[in-house]
Amino acid sequence: MSHPLRLGIAGLGTVGGGVVDILHRQADLIAMRAGRPVQITAVSARNRAKDRGVDLSGFAWEDDPISLAHRADVDVLVELMGGAEGPAHMATRAALTAGKDVVTANKALLAHHGQSLAEMAEAAGRVIRFEAAVAGGIPVIKTLGEGLAANRMTRVMGVMNGTCNYILTRMESAGLPYDQVFEEARALGYLEADPTLDVGGIDAGHKLALLASLAFGTRVSFDTVELEGIERVSIDDIRLAADMGFKIKLLGVAQISERGLEQRMTPCLVPADSPLGQLQGGTNMVVLEGDSVGQIVLRGAGAGAGPTASAVLADVIDLARGLRIPTFGQPATTLAQATTAPAVMEAPFYLRMTLADQPGALARVATVLGEAGISIDRMRQYGHSDTAAPVLIVTHKTNRNAIDTALAQLPNTGVVVGAPVAIRIETV
Amino acid sequence: MSHPLRLGIAGLGTVGGGVVDILHRQADLIAMRAGRPVQITAVSARNRAKDRGVDLSGFAWEDDPISLAHRADVDVLVELMGGAEGPAHMATRAALTAGKDVVTANKALLAHHGQSLAEMAEAAGRVIRFEAAVAGGIPVIKTLGEGLAANRMTRVMGVMNGTCNYILTRMESAGLPYDQVFEEARALGYLEADPTLDVGGIDAGHKLALLASLAFGTRVSFDTVELEGIERVSIDDIRLAADMGFKIKLLGVAQISERGLEQRMTPCLVPADSPLGQLQGGTNMVVLEGDSVGQIVLRGAGAGAGPTASAVLADVIDLARGLRIPTFGQPATTLAQATTAPAVMEAPFYLRMTLADQPGALARVATVLGEAGISIDRMRQYGHSDTAAPVLIVTHKTNRNAIDTALAQLPNTGVVVGAPVAIRIETV
Repeated sequence: MSHPLRLGIAGLGTVGGGVVDILHRQADLIAMRAGRPVQITAVSARNRAKDRGVDLSGFAWEDDPISLAHRADVDVLVELMGGAEGPAHMATRAALTAGKDVVTANKALLAHHGQSLAEMAEAAGRVIRFEAAVAGGIPVIKTLGEGLAANRMTRVMGVMNGTCNYILTRMESAGLPYDQVFEEARALGYLEADPTLDVGGIDAGHKLALLASLAFGTRVSFDTVELEGIERVSIDDIRLAADMGFKIKLLGVAQISERGLEQRMTPCLVPADSPLGQLQGGTNMVVLEGDSVGQIVLRGAGAGAGPTASAVLADVIDLARGLRIPTFGQPATTLAQATTAPAVMEAPFYLRMTLADQPGALARVATVLGEAGISIDRMRQYGHSDTAAPVLIVTHKTNRNAIDTALAQLPNTGVVVGAPVAIRIETV
Repeated sequence: MSHPLRLGIAGLGTVGGGVVDILHRQADLIAMRAGRPVQITAVSARNRAKDRGVDLSGFAWEDDPISLAHRADVDVLVELMGGAEGPAHMATRAALTAGKDVVTANKALLAHHGQSLAEMAEAAGRVIRFEAAVAGGIPVIKTLGEGLAANRMTRVMGVMNGTCNYILTRMESAGLPYDQVFEEARALGYLEADPTLDVGGIDAGHKLALLASLAFGTRVSFDTVELEGIERVSIDDIRLAADMGFKIKLLGVAQISERGLEQRMTPCLVPADSPLGQLQGGTNMVVLEGDSVGQIVLRGAGAGAGPTASAVLADVIDLARGLRIPTFGQPATTLAQATTAPAVMEAPFYLRMTLADQPGALARVATVLGEAGISIDRMRQYGHSDTAAPVLIVTHKTNRNAIDTALAQLPNTGVVVGAPVAIRIETV
């Protein structure tokens, strides 16, 4: 067996601890599969004194991750600190400059600096791998970049933030409002230090932008992802959507056409009995569509020490085995700068509004929708004890512009109470 | 860009035609991702005159696949002829001896000769890849051998024969008996020339044996797969299982424990609302369970020109990129010879029998089950106009031996009409 592959681990949180733990437990198995031993030689984290429940005594310690990246006894920097800027960015650049490969779980870093880091790595003859950055334990980067490499990919979809999916499924199962479940999730430690990263859809948007780059051969373009978080999803909408046979999910969709690249990470309705609709708690699901393979669906744990460390170590084993491919599946300099597609992809929409209890109210709403070119598939008016009635409408396929036109006109009817809600329906 | 990777395609049926077609359409995309051009230089098939709807004019022709394997202008033999013996086996050996890598879709070949071929390849410094041999377009070989390589795998399950799943779902949706749907499937060209390969569970058993080897680091052991086909699944059982909330699937399960390796490919009941239960038509689903990653589920097309050729070309692109790993994920000489586990893994069972309409009949059945150590979870007796009544029983967890004991005793009660049916229930 040949010489060992030597890792420097920067960041010893949940994922870093998981990597140390697996390498302790499965060293022989991993060496057998990798064709050579995989060893941690040095580690770095903010607080050396903290008890992490794993034995670090065999590893050199570096306070500074950049020093770690420079060590002569490190072949691969395993960057598990997180954050788009600061130490993670600097240590990654330092490692590439020093001739090390990089394995990272850092979606924010690559969503913001993926192009420059990929170019830097390729100029230096080094490799960046990031399986753990998207969908936790699900090998979606490998599937897209290798397993489906003979396909022209047409669409990528997914539920890729377990915390949001936990909140949405918990709201439904317990019948609780968003704010209360948000506080529960915070107390359980499910939220990032800045919770907007999760509930604002930013973390999931980072992941979608990385998948889109790999799928379509385009430069990572996080800034053009249409982002909407789950903060405004109400328990009313969850209940009423369920009544119409739908669940609400924070769903990412990226597709490319002659109009350009469309990327959305927004709350959507999906059929309750579809695979996406049945997704519970922190589980992730990714749907990949290619011209030859058709549709491939992957499901698994989207977070947690074990699943995420499994993904980190898959990348490490690939490097140990000698797999060396460009960060985004083709040379970074060949990635296209996609134009951003106007939001023209059609879909049915769910509309919820409250109508004043007066003759002709519904007719006025129908007129506004008709004038915007929107036709109605299904409508339900609910019983009410008030002077206003909740009304649900499922439209036929239309586009976001038509919906926005209608939403702007509805207040002028004089019969719509409060702000109407519009949520896209995805039927995959 | 470096020198091209040159393919020799042996076999120009559905999959071979698909490979030629994709390489025509996506040559630039594949070259970009592979880092070098991928070209077909020569092809071989039984009948040169046959019109296959693809342009073969740019390729050299060989009548003999062994001559193809020996050609100096071929780097990789792409073996798409099929069959465990004969030309496929000989051409594969010839290619390895001549210093070529091999990409194959041939599950029968590897299920029977995987160990010797892997040893031969590794001794010669060559690589055999077989993504297309299991579950069509789903990259399950890559997921298991690379994406989850840091895991000690505990269980692999799957519905991996689309023809059987088509027959079973069609029987249910159309309410037709097995024989009639079998003839439909034959007329549609869904069946292998020897249909026993499909409906006898042999093809799916081959696939399961390959997955088990990769998952557990054991030698391929097709002979120890407990095999039962779908020929005896009756429309009655499909209907009655549905009434209890189950679907019948030809389901493969491989798991390893200190007792040894257990491999089964048998009709099973699965919950109708589970992902496996919802699988329609020719779609395949594979469930992979590892100690760190937990459970990963993959779904996609299990057959067809596009999906299978997508898998073949993923292997080719891997080779073009320089990925060189042992056939079964670790050196063939290190694969363990697993002992075969006794069928002791417990599960609930579905029992269907017809009872004579006489007092105490059910009590006698319950006594037999109790004496075999089987306890009853749910029971339904159906209305009848006859002198005998259909009775369904769902047991609590028990094992196959207890069920076999009970099945042997039931005729002695004098109240059971005809042969009782027992089908295992898998609840994943």
